[in-house]
Amino acid sequence: MSDLLESALNPKSVAVIGASENIHKIGGRPIHYMQKFGFAGRIYPINPQREEVQGLESYASLAALPEAPDLALVIVGGEKAVAAVDECAARGVKSAVVIASGFGEAGEEGREVQRAMARRARAAGMRLYGPNTQGLANFGNGAIAGFSTMFVEVPPADGPIGVVSQSGGMSAMAYGLLRGRGLGVRHVHATGNEADVTVSDMAWAVAHDPDVKLLLLYLETIADPELLARTAAYARERGLPIVAVKAGRSASGQKAASSHTGSLANEDRAVDAFFRHHGIWRVRDPHAQALAAEAYLKGWRPEGRRLVIISNSGASCVMGADASEEFGLPLAELSASTRENVASRLPGFATATNPIDITAALLSNSGLFGDVLPAVAADPAADLFFINIPVAGAGYDVEAFANDTARFEAATGKPVVVAAWQASVAAPFKARGIPTFGNETEALGVLAQLASHTALMRESHAPWPEALASAPGSALALPQGTGRFLNEAQSLALLAAHGVPVVAHQLCRSAAEARDAWGAVGAPAVVKACSADVPHKSEHGLVALRVGSADAAAALFDAQWAKLAALGAAQEGVLVAAMHKGRHEFMVGARLDPVFGPVVVVGDGGTYVEALPDVAVLLPPFDTAEVKKALDTLRIAPLLGGVRGEPPLDVEALAAVVVAVGRLIVAGGGSIASIDVNPVMVGAAGEGAMVVDALVERAGT
Amino acid sequence: MSDLLESALNPKSVAVIGASENIHKIGGRPIHYMQKFGFAGRIYPINPQREEVQGLESYASLAALPEAPDLALVIVGGEKAVAAVDECAARGVKSAVVIASGFGEAGEEGREVQRAMARRARAAGMRLYGPNTQGLANFGNGAIAGFSTMFVEVPPADGPIGVVSQSGGMSAMAYGLLRGRGLGVRHVHATGNEADVTVSDMAWAVAHDPDVKLLLLYLETIADPELLARTAAYARERGLPIVAVKAGRSASGQKAASSHTGSLANEDRAVDAFFRHHGIWRVRDPHAQALAAEAYLKGWRPEGRRLVIISNSGASCVMGADASEEFGLPLAELSASTRENVASRLPGFATATNPIDITAALLSNSGLFGDVLPAVAADPAADLFFINIPVAGAGYDVEAFANDTARFEAATGKPVVVAAWQASVAAPFKARGIPTFGNETEALGVLAQLASHTALMRESHAPWPEALASAPGSALALPQGTGRFLNEAQSLALLAAHGVPVVAHQLCRSAAEARDAWGAVGAPAVVKACSADVPHKSEHGLVALRVGSADAAAALFDAQWAKLAALGAAQEGVLVAAMHKGRHEFMVGARLDPVFGPVVVVGDGGTYVEALPDVAVLLPPFDTAEVKKALDTLRIAPLLGGVRGEPPLDVEALAAVVVAVGRLIVAGGGSIASIDVNPVMVGAAGEGAMVVDALVERAGT
Repeated sequence: MSDLLESALNPKSVAVIGASENIHKIGGRPIHYMQKFGFAGRIYPINPQREEVQGLESYASLAALPEAPDLALVIVGGEKAVAAVDECAARGVKSAVVIASGFGEAGEEGREVQRAMARRARAAGMRLYGPNTQGLANFGNGAIAGFSTMFVEVPPADGPIGVVSQSGGMSAMAYGLLRGRGLGVRHVHATGNEADVTVSDMAWAVAHDPDVKLLLLYLETIADPELLARTAAYARERGLPIVAVKAGRSASGQKAASSHTGSLANEDRAVDAFFRHHGIWRVRDPHAQALAAEAYLKGWRPEGRRLVIISNSGASCVMGADASEEFGLPLAELSASTRENVASRLPGFATATNPIDITAALLSNSGLFGDVLPAVAADPAADLFFINIPVAGAGYDVEAFANDTARFEAATGKPVVVAAWQASVAAPFKARGIPTFGNETEALGVLAQLASHTALMRESHAPWPEALASAPGSALALPQGTGRFLNEAQSLALLAAHGVPVVAHQLCRSAAEARDAWGAVGAPAVVKACSADVPHKSEHGLVALRVGSADAAAALFDAQWAKLAALGAAQEGVLVAAMHKGRHEFMVGARLDPVFGPVVVVGDGGTYVEALPDVAVLLPPFDTAEVKKALDTLRIAPLLGGVRGEPPLDVEALAAVVVAVGRLIVAGGGSIASIDVNPVMVGAAGEGAMVVDALVERAGT
Repeated sequence: MSDLLESALNPKSVAVIGASENIHKIGGRPIHYMQKFGFAGRIYPINPQREEVQGLESYASLAALPEAPDLALVIVGGEKAVAAVDECAARGVKSAVVIASGFGEAGEEGREVQRAMARRARAAGMRLYGPNTQGLANFGNGAIAGFSTMFVEVPPADGPIGVVSQSGGMSAMAYGLLRGRGLGVRHVHATGNEADVTVSDMAWAVAHDPDVKLLLLYLETIADPELLARTAAYARERGLPIVAVKAGRSASGQKAASSHTGSLANEDRAVDAFFRHHGIWRVRDPHAQALAAEAYLKGWRPEGRRLVIISNSGASCVMGADASEEFGLPLAELSASTRENVASRLPGFATATNPIDITAALLSNSGLFGDVLPAVAADPAADLFFINIPVAGAGYDVEAFANDTARFEAATGKPVVVAAWQASVAAPFKARGIPTFGNETEALGVLAQLASHTALMRESHAPWPEALASAPGSALALPQGTGRFLNEAQSLALLAAHGVPVVAHQLCRSAAEARDAWGAVGAPAVVKACSADVPHKSEHGLVALRVGSADAAAALFDAQWAKLAALGAAQEGVLVAAMHKGRHEFMVGARLDPVFGPVVVVGDGGTYVEALPDVAVLLPPFDTAEVKKALDTLRIAPLLGGVRGEPPLDVEALAAVVVAVGRLIVAGGGSIASIDVNPVMVGAAGEGAMVVDALVERAGT
């Protein structure tokens, strides 16, 4: 962790500019919290109106302090806040937290003010938190440079969870929800408008706290993806799961985010790809973060997804079986001996197959639970266990069930979760540290998340490529020219030079050349005009398919050449290319995202790519295995393996094209804005893949 | 309501066969409950071992009773239960509730025993509930012919909700969840194995209780769809919403259901179509039923889906905007005057557009809520209101917010719901009858459900057609034959006779006829063998496309004729048909479902109908408007209106085909097992639709 962040998370001294005696006011709360929650450092209230604040000596100004504080909390607003930040920078403060609103979230003017303020702070060697933030809180040492009322509503307890959030409200809510579940929380930090320090910075710092076992993020924009990627890599290495909320998934959400924290929009599919690539699990809101927290903290890292369901309600077994399909948690096929073993312990009308329905007989025989659990524990077919008790209460020995469950968990180390909506039924399980949920959807959702996230974290990922972080202007030589696009011949040549198989073609400059080319590329041929000025040829009738003779090719040359002239487009040539038909058309695209850098898309090709999109998004670097995994998420995935007696498609060849396109845009080092390869004709396995049209766009044009 | 059901729900006298003094035993609980919950009728404990049970005179047998009781509760098990039921029938009991398990859910033998038991009961004029049921409970009159422990866990209160469930566990859970939310519940009935009385019977009876304002069902099979359809029609007429859980959505769920209540499988897409057709809303579990109950009971019937979000958290506004898109609740476009009005009441840095972010300024100015609400109430653009308070507590005047909200609701009558996870924040809203949820997903989910269900209940639906209920054997004359399929010529003729446009074709019996037909139908033509023995012609190479000459047609006749002989198939002819190409291929199918009767499917056509299904299911009777609504749910829906400069498709013509196919299978009256129309070539608007291949399957072959 950098010294500067250390000064914010573990300050030796904190100044509060705008300190208040009233512990319910924003200027009073941080001092109150620090004193109450055991901050051992020095606290300097600054308030020229008072001699003492909350029992501490009050100072007239920052200049009057006996030392330069590590951290200054700027409570005053508007221009006073800006002045205070400048004063902090001059005084040698290491970190300044600016609470005031009315900056970047209010519009361009405020954005400029906060940018300049942050620039001056950095120049002086000071880090800036906010503005428009609820501040920082470290319950490991009581350094509470924030004012959230939630710390009063739900008393803090130090623990293994870190919360880093752009939004103060969401940091408070996550804290409150976690504490409400009895979980300890160490870090609760809000970054607000992120004029300087971002969620990525704080995540990096918190991930390096060795006591933190779960890191929760709330973002409205991913301001520094490179640092977040490095943080995620470090976290994976040390087995620290990161669960993130990225709000602003929709157009209207992004609009709302812009007026909340002045956030820039991220394309949401790219956000998904970014998180997946870096092993960060994405959920919809802080409720979902809190819901899964306890299961993460159990340290369970399941090897598989095969589920056993045990319930005292047959209906719950039915709904559980339905839900297991939805969540992709297949019911474990218990061995014959396990089934016999279970059956021998249950009444005759109970169900010994999975889901195991121990029926209402549980009411008269409390031992059924303890009898059944060891019988299934021994079965190697099971990875995950779910106990659903939708009805119990007086007459049921729930304490015994909970003991049996805790014993089972201790013996097997396998994940076991419970659903029980009755508080009296849930309590004994909770008391024994068994993650217990209000209903089956929550319980199975968390198990599925745990299994998926564990698998994702185990995937090896190349680190963020240095090339992506480097400035535009690269070793890759694009053809000379100043236009926005390369023409098709240039685009195909660039792809071919980077290992992509492209259709046989010749660029012709005369009818005679076209006539010769027709024979050379193989009949029938395609004849299409080639000009960087006409990127979308079909729209202008400049593509002729199934050209059946050399004469026809020559005639088409003349017609298209003339048409280019008529359009006022550069007459760069006419392409004569082989007609190549695969078994299925795919599209591959790549573009330079302003936030994430290179983003690659692969999906179903053909006419309706825009109208009926069926695509997967990948962030380089990736290999063919990752492409194949992405292809399996497509709607057309069943076609890859062959249906209706068709042979499987050459997925290897397609994946190689996608990898090559990804490498090409990365190699572009910022010089290529986009690559559009549509269609890629993919044949049956072994027949390869072939690009028959491509369009490369220069960056910065 | 029938007298027999009346005898169960409002009995004048109840006998308990197997009565117990112990109020914790199954034989003791019903008597205890009836005495405790105010049953005013006569209770007859039957226990030969005792003179008195729970202070009541005990009888040695049913025969010893002074009268034939309206209702008998059979607590004894196994063969004793069967004997008791027979005794009840002989004694003139009107309704017998059989608790014992080990019948239909245990296998075929048990199914036969319960069938016979029910048959004897019905013959004697007695209705049978169960076996394998937790029984009935009517808290309107204290008639509790059941033993659920949940009535002890959560004390009952009479109210406007009826619960009818196959599963006793789920009836108890729904009851408990509803009561836990403070809602009154009158009916809690479980039907178990449904040897006689089904959920449909009970739903019909409960729907006729005028005090019931919300009817919740739990089903594992839809045993009597005709009665459930009539119940739904009656309920819609009187404005009674029905919200149903149908478990066994998946293959493994249906397997589990079979060993739970011995339920038969229903095809799940047909279940969805059935519920939609009859205005029943389907949810995943009793938690979802309980979640939405209060909003239903408010009596809100929203006219539209346009949402206003108000929060004191900017992040919640962002996530709310995201969620509004997901739930299909567009953010209301507030008028300029509303926005100005709102802005004038908020601090400068707050957001006066929708979502309205009143910011943490709420902490210092509790009046903001009351100021903003009337400003938006006046705007006619808003149908639904959502207030999200993710952070509050000490210092916030939550009582005032709740008062303002209640006043707003009283003044506008518009739906307004709240999300607040802190119990202290939620309580004042709940106390004022505002539906209050733990999070935004729940709150918006319920609003969306209310809006969708209200719209669905307003749709006019034809009643269950009498034809569907009638026995097989109909007025429709299928061509003579005993084979499973009609041949293609017969299939096309049947469709044409029922108003479906079919491709021009001629059935040829000689090469000469084929030669003539080629000219007559219009070149190029399709030549395909026609034999009821070869329903899938392509697989045998018996379809030739783009036949370009009369000679070729004649030659193909000879080849296909010979091939039919080689296959040992009846040589019924060779079809020469026009090649008809539309703009898009659709598929239309119909089949006779064993439970629901005729079921119609329409969807994307082409090669991958099975591998990549994109279909909608409809239950007859329906009109073209309903078909068009169903088409809008398809993945390919964007193509209907035309994309990429293409003209819109002739949706009217396609819908007419679907309606005609539905009418045809209904007219079949059980004689047609299935109709497979693939493809239907659909042209641009005005160009019509044309069936180019069809296959009709006879029932009972």
